[in-house]
Amino acid sequence: MTMQTYTYLDNSATTPVAEAVLDAMLPYFTHRYGNASSLHQQGREAHKALEEARTEIAAGLGVSPAEILFTSGATEADNLAILGLAAADPSKRHIITTAIEHHAVLHSVEALAARGYETTVLDVDPSGRVDPEQVRAALRDDTLLVSVMAGNNEIGTLQPIEAIGDLCREREVPFHTDAVQAYGKLNLPMDRIDLMSVSAHKLHGPKGIGFLFVRKGVSLSPILHGGGHERGRRSGTENVAGIVGLAAAARVASTEREEVVARMRGFRKRLMGAIAEIPGSRLNGHATESLPHIANFSFEAIEGESLVMKLDEHGIAASTGSACSSPTLEPSHVLVAIGVPLSMAHGSLRISTGRQTTEAEIDRLIEVLPRVVEELRSFSPFKVSR
Amino acid sequence: MTMQTYTYLDNSATTPVAEAVLDAMLPYFTHRYGNASSLHQQGREAHKALEEARTEIAAGLGVSPAEILFTSGATEADNLAILGLAAADPSKRHIITTAIEHHAVLHSVEALAARGYETTVLDVDPSGRVDPEQVRAALRDDTLLVSVMAGNNEIGTLQPIEAIGDLCREREVPFHTDAVQAYGKLNLPMDRIDLMSVSAHKLHGPKGIGFLFVRKGVSLSPILHGGGHERGRRSGTENVAGIVGLAAAARVASTEREEVVARMRGFRKRLMGAIAEIPGSRLNGHATESLPHIANFSFEAIEGESLVMKLDEHGIAASTGSACSSPTLEPSHVLVAIGVPLSMAHGSLRISTGRQTTEAEIDRLIEVLPRVVEELRSFSPFKVSR
Repeated sequence: MTMQTYTYLDNSATTPVAEAVLDAMLPYFTHRYGNASSLHQQGREAHKALEEARTEIAAGLGVSPAEILFTSGATEADNLAILGLAAADPSKRHIITTAIEHHAVLHSVEALAARGYETTVLDVDPSGRVDPEQVRAALRDDTLLVSVMAGNNEIGTLQPIEAIGDLCREREVPFHTDAVQAYGKLNLPMDRIDLMSVSAHKLHGPKGIGFLFVRKGVSLSPILHGGGHERGRRSGTENVAGIVGLAAAARVASTEREEVVARMRGFRKRLMGAIAEIPGSRLNGHATESLPHIANFSFEAIEGESLVMKLDEHGIAASTGSACSSPTLEPSHVLVAIGVPLSMAHGSLRISTGRQTTEAEIDRLIEVLPRVVEELRSFSPFKVSR
Repeated sequence: MTMQTYTYLDNSATTPVAEAVLDAMLPYFTHRYGNASSLHQQGREAHKALEEARTEIAAGLGVSPAEILFTSGATEADNLAILGLAAADPSKRHIITTAIEHHAVLHSVEALAARGYETTVLDVDPSGRVDPEQVRAALRDDTLLVSVMAGNNEIGTLQPIEAIGDLCREREVPFHTDAVQAYGKLNLPMDRIDLMSVSAHKLHGPKGIGFLFVRKGVSLSPILHGGGHERGRRSGTENVAGIVGLAAAARVASTEREEVVARMRGFRKRLMGAIAEIPGSRLNGHATESLPHIANFSFEAIEGESLVMKLDEHGIAASTGSACSSPTLEPSHVLVAIGVPLSMAHGSLRISTGRQTTEAEIDRLIEVLPRVVEELRSFSPFKVSR
C-alpha cells in the first residue's frame, strides 16, 4: 500500500504537520538554535521568536501574552491546571468535573482524590452533554475548580462551556476547559474561561508542545521545578522550534478556519447519513452540537478493533475510542457514560477529519465501510438485532 | 554581523541540531505523523520508530529498553526521578543532594522539603567535588534518594559517581544522577546508577525531549497523569519526531565521541593556559576532573553580564553561569558553593564547546578576550588586585 492511497481519518489522535508549520520551525533547528534564556544574540533571537509566538497565540484568543504558558502538551497543561491550582490554594478541597473528560483531567482529579479531595463527577445525557444546572447544584464554597472540556475527543459533543463559565464566575470558582479538540475550530468564550489546555499536534502542529491559558490573577504552583522559566510557572528550556510551530499551526487554522470547518461539517453530515443506512449502527454523540471533525458510531456484533484493523487493510486509518487508551481493552469511559450498551461500546468507530481530508476520501470510506461491517459480522457469533 | 563569523561557545546552554538529527526527524513531521498509540499503519509505524529509538538509546548505555522513559526534557526527568520516587515510597523522608546541582534537582528537593522532608545538601570542595565519605556519613535508613550530578553544568567538575553509586548500593538507597552534560561525552557507570536524567538539546538534538533511565525494580509514581503512556509512568502523546531526533543525536555523539572529546579537551587546555595569563583571572572548577567541553573562569572587577555582552558584540556567544538562571541577578549558587568570593562570582564566564567548534574559533576567543577584559576594567570602579 502506498502513501498516496492512504486515507487518514484519525485526526483526533494526531495530524500531519502542515507544510507552513514545518517551514516556520526549520530555522530553529538549524541556524536559530539559541537557548531563549541566553543573553547573547542567538539567545535573544530565540527569546524574540518565543515571545512573538506567545503574542500571536494570545492575540488569536484576545488574551494577554502573559496569560499563555507553554507546556510539553495538553496532558501537562491539564495536570498543571488541576494540580497546580490545588497546590496554590490548599484551602479548597472540592473539584467538579465530568465523566467524559480526557484521562489527563480525570486521572489528575483522581490523584487529588487519593489525597483526600472530594470530587463531583457529573453525568452526561445520552448525547454526552452536561446540563449547566448540574454544575450549579454541585458548586460549593470550597470548590477549587470546575473542569469541563469544550468538545469531547471521542464523540465530539460540545459542552455548554459559556453557561458553565458564567456559573463559575458567579461563585468565583476557577473554570478550566480542555480545548484540545476545539481550539482552532470553534470560537471559545475566553471571557468565561480561567484555564484552558491546548495541544499543537491535534492542529497540524508538532507533537510535544502545547499551552495552558492562565487568566491573570489565577495563581498556580508549578508542577515542574527548576530554572523558573515561563515566569516561574513551568521550568525547562523552552522548546523554541515547537513553540514557533504551535504559533504557525494556530495561524494556519485561523486563516483557513471558515473553509475547513464548513468542509468538515459537510463530511460529518454525509457520514451520519450514509452510516445510518448500515443496519445495527448508531451515532454516538450529538447530531448537531458537535465538533465538526469528529463522528463516532457503534456497530452491533462487531469489535471496534477488528473494524479498525480491517479498514486499515483497505488503507483507511480510523480509531475506536481515543488513541491514548488504545492499548487497553476496557470499553471507552465516554461511551459507557453516555449509556451505550457494552455490546455496542466495544464496536465503536471514531472517524475524524483534518484540513487535508478530501471528499474522495469520505467517498471511499462510505463505499468500504458497509462491506467491512458485513464481512466482520459474517464471522461474528452475535446476531444483529435489526 | 553575519552567521558565518558567529562563534558559538555556549554549547552547555544548548547546541545546534546536527544535520543527521534533523534528517532523521523530518519524515516524522511530514509523512510518518501517526500517534504511536494508534492501531492502524500510521500508528504502528510511529510505535515502531519510538521503540527503535528506545532500543538504540538503551543499547548505547547497555541497559534494557524498558528502562528508558521519555520525557519533555531533563527538567521533567529530574522532577520525575525525585518527586516520582517520593510519591512511590512515602515511608522514606530523607534526601541527600549537593549544593551545586542543577535547579531542576535543587528545587524539586526543596519542594519535598516544604512538605516536611529532611534534606542533606552536601558541600563541595573548592574545585566543586563531593567527597564520597560525605555521602557515606549522610546515608540513613530512611534515605529515599541520593542525587548527585555526573558533571556540573556551570564549572564542568566531575563527581565521583561510581564511588557514590557503590555506597548507595551498599545501603540499598536509589542513586540518581543528572547526566545532562556528561551523557554522550563520558562513560557512565550504569551498573551503579538507578535513575539518570538526559536532555537531547545539549547534545545536538532538538529541544523539548529527554529521557529518564529508571533501573528495573525502581518504583516511580507518575507526575503527569493521563493516558498511561510509557508503561503508565509518563502520560502524554509521545513526541515521536523528538524521540527519533534524540536517538539520532545519541548515535552521532557515540560515533564521533573519541574524536570530538579529544578536540574539546585540547580546547579546554588551551583556554586554561591562555586565560591564566590574564591578570586577576581564575579557573572555576577542576583542572583535570572535568567535563571536556566546559571551562569556567572568573575575572576580578568585571561583571559577567557585561563580559558576555561585549563578547557578543565581537560575534562570540558565551555565558555567565547557566542559561537557566540568566534572568536572575543572583550570583551563581555553584560559584558561591565552591567559595568564589562574591566580587569574582559576579565576574564569571562559561565557555562551552560543541562538536562544531573549531580551533579558529578558540583562537578568536583567545585573541579577543584579554582586550575585552581590559576594556571593561578600564570602566570599572574596582581595582584588580594582581
